[in-house]
Amino acid sequence: MDNAKINEEVQKLLKLKSELQEREGPKKFVLKTGKGTRDYSPKDMALREKVFQVIVSTFKRHGAETIDTPVFELKDTLTGKYGEDSKLIYDLADQGGEILSLRYDLTVPFARYVAMNKIDNIKRYHIAKVYRRDNPAMTRGRYREFYQCDFDIAGQFDPMVPDAECLRIVHEILGGLDVGPYIVKVNHRKILDGIFATCGVPEDKFRPICSAVDKLDKTFWEDVRLEMVEEKGLDPQVADLIGEYVSLKGGADLISKLEADERLMGDKRTVEGLKDMKLLLKYCQLFGMEDRVSFDLSLARGLDYYTGVIYEAVLLGTKVNESSDSEVVGVGSVCGGGRYDNLVGMFAAKQKTVPCVGLSIGVERIFSILEAKAKREKLSVRTTETEVFVAAAQKNLLDQRMELCTLLWDADIKTEQSYKKNPKLLNQFQYCEENGIPLCVIIGQSELEQKIVKLRNVSTREERAVPRENMIEEIRKELSTCLQK
Amino acid sequence: MDNAKINEEVQKLLKLKSELQEREGPKKFVLKTGKGTRDYSPKDMALREKVFQVIVSTFKRHGAETIDTPVFELKDTLTGKYGEDSKLIYDLADQGGEILSLRYDLTVPFARYVAMNKIDNIKRYHIAKVYRRDNPAMTRGRYREFYQCDFDIAGQFDPMVPDAECLRIVHEILGGLDVGPYIVKVNHRKILDGIFATCGVPEDKFRPICSAVDKLDKTFWEDVRLEMVEEKGLDPQVADLIGEYVSLKGGADLISKLEADERLMGDKRTVEGLKDMKLLLKYCQLFGMEDRVSFDLSLARGLDYYTGVIYEAVLLGTKVNESSDSEVVGVGSVCGGGRYDNLVGMFAAKQKTVPCVGLSIGVERIFSILEAKAKREKLSVRTTETEVFVAAAQKNLLDQRMELCTLLWDADIKTEQSYKKNPKLLNQFQYCEENGIPLCVIIGQSELEQKIVKLRNVSTREERAVPRENMIEEIRKELSTCLQK
Repeated sequence: MDNAKINEEVQKLLKLKSELQEREGPKKFVLKTGKGTRDYSPKDMALREKVFQVIVSTFKRHGAETIDTPVFELKDTLTGKYGEDSKLIYDLADQGGEILSLRYDLTVPFARYVAMNKIDNIKRYHIAKVYRRDNPAMTRGRYREFYQCDFDIAGQFDPMVPDAECLRIVHEILGGLDVGPYIVKVNHRKILDGIFATCGVPEDKFRPICSAVDKLDKTFWEDVRLEMVEEKGLDPQVADLIGEYVSLKGGADLISKLEADERLMGDKRTVEGLKDMKLLLKYCQLFGMEDRVSFDLSLARGLDYYTGVIYEAVLLGTKVNESSDSEVVGVGSVCGGGRYDNLVGMFAAKQKTVPCVGLSIGVERIFSILEAKAKREKLSVRTTETEVFVAAAQKNLLDQRMELCTLLWDADIKTEQSYKKNPKLLNQFQYCEENGIPLCVIIGQSELEQKIVKLRNVSTREERAVPRENMIEEIRKELSTCLQK
Repeated sequence: MDNAKINEEVQKLLKLKSELQEREGPKKFVLKTGKGTRDYSPKDMALREKVFQVIVSTFKRHGAETIDTPVFELKDTLTGKYGEDSKLIYDLADQGGEILSLRYDLTVPFARYVAMNKIDNIKRYHIAKVYRRDNPAMTRGRYREFYQCDFDIAGQFDPMVPDAECLRIVHEILGGLDVGPYIVKVNHRKILDGIFATCGVPEDKFRPICSAVDKLDKTFWEDVRLEMVEEKGLDPQVADLIGEYVSLKGGADLISKLEADERLMGDKRTVEGLKDMKLLLKYCQLFGMEDRVSFDLSLARGLDYYTGVIYEAVLLGTKVNESSDSEVVGVGSVCGGGRYDNLVGMFAAKQKTVPCVGLSIGVERIFSILEAKAKREKLSVRTTETEVFVAAAQKNLLDQRMELCTLLWDADIKTEQSYKKNPKLLNQFQYCEENGIPLCVIIGQSELEQKIVKLRNVSTREERAVPRENMIEEIRKELSTCLQK
């Protein structure tokens, strides 16, 4: 059945659907966010900021710049980059003008950016949301709208030097976040292709078979084998041969073992890939992270565009008891990436290529782990940074409170007051305590007459009189003491 | 012509279009971003971060929390909120499942969030991109994808107290950014409605006529009058009466003038609105910004959902000479907002309402002003924060450079090195100078043997030997001196 025919049928069905909706009259309005998406509450945001802070400071520690690109791209820009996953791309409606799609990742927009601006080399990070019409699993941090934190190095450099730095960055980020032990699985597309060729996979089936291998971290070999044989028409004996190779993992020992495999070493790609892997493991050692890296032949990565080293960081022993249903939640991979030397060339005039390597942190999964942890440990999080609350001890002092607030804001002191004309003093104190505001400035008629304010330390509940002219100075002193505690 | 018929015709045309495209064969791929959108280069991002920093620190100075919502909402959530502007909403394609649209602003998602989470009061800011299928004017900072920086106060409080704080926030932000003098125009929807009623506008034409008045900042009264009479079927005499009122502006004097207008004061809405305005001007005085506020009856704001005070900040005398074509660019309004007391109720069960007031900073226009300024003044901006570059004076020292980088990264010092195996020393120095990296650590064979490194101050080009064991300490000392300069 050809595409035109399918499109025609889809159009018919969509028309029927909209006719049906019209006939049914106005639907009841449903108050929700789109499927697979979520709001971030102030508490969620406080956690998110903390995680981003660790990630961004690591990227900056390695001298990265940052860029931003639009949330949608011309549909043509995304076409043919993602292999089997393309069906998960969100399209925008054709409202006249260009045909647009929401970005599926940050890598393809980055490659488009590099090609469009004729950039020879750049080291950049990009933190933004991407969109996939996937089956959401929200408790495990799998959403249809989710953040990616990407770091990439583009440019013609010596083998494995930028690649190893990417691994070092993964190492620093996961070490800096409170997520427990982890391992970084590494593999090489050339080694996989070499294995496929040696086992007898026809060249045009490399990517589909790679896609099947990629599922090994979520399912059993039997299912993967079934996909290869039934869906993708691979000879069962070839599948079995592949099965033997992709069960192997190790370190330098595995490299030696593969080098001793004469049949395998007959393929140029395997030889090149193993040379890279040797260098990479050595550089990881120099970067102080050899115990974190595992050469794992089952790692394949789903996306089509990788051409060299690929990697994925996995948290070990993450068993989070969700309070709701005591379900054991494994989050698995929290970071992935690899080398993609031909992607920029797909956009560039005259196919001018710029080799790239990069990584992407799956922060949503990290958020869900840290959220569960904060819940378990009943950590309280401040969602504001207010330093001073201006309170009135009597009625009809709104004007005077406003004048005080003006003085404090002018002095760059983070200040709040009640938006009620005559708030009760107890309610004002309670607000301070609930929101962790360290200081409270109190005025009443007598304070105004004496040109003083009362300065209350919210946690100790101690109050002292301060001359109004020294107020700012005294507050600054007190705040620096509060911070030291 | 009914909607179903129009939709049918649209579907037919879309089908013809796609058939035509198929017949023409594969199009030439165009390397660009979607119409009305842009990439942000590292330099753009450095400026953007600076602007956001001023804005966010102001929001925090007023005790705001932050939230985030998805980039798309159910289409039904946006329907009926924007009046005439609804045609500018981007829809997502119907790919099965829910019907979604890209958010048009951050206010409606905020109201949806407040209703959905049954929140009684919240003071939050939200910085995110919104989407409008408008005619872009990119040199003036008008895009189809653009940032909004919103601050809103939701909750039942005393009149004008939160409203005045919103104006104070606008004042602090525009004062904190380097954008020159500005004025905040204020008006009140109730006063406008009172004027419309008094002049003889039928109740069902209030919002369309308000929409027409809103265009007064971009076009002449004659055009607005034409729209009222020709398009919106208003009696020409009624239009002329409105024309007299909306040309008025001032301060407390204007309030007195309107209060003396007996015909106008016969409408309850005018009386209520003027009472609010009086209070607001008084609070602005207490907040030290009375000279920045202008009561301006021509201010209408396009959106339907405002119910009370409305405001808009305008930069005065912004004449930016674009280097390209010497065009005089006026950016006009850089901030808008107002009170919308019924929006949350449109989402809430039992119409439970939560009054809100807020503001939105139009940062894209601010970016374009500051970009032009930076260009004019030829300011150089650092796009990275790298503190140390590890350089080799001879060949074959990559392993040793990597070891040094590891030491520096472990000590949280922002460090780069060349990704080439054997970079030339001169190129390494040049990289430091071009990128404003303050320090360079140099190793050669003799340094390695003596267990020292050379520490080079990039700007003075002075070098000194430092024992390797003191390297971190010496670098920290040197960096703190560099920062002081």
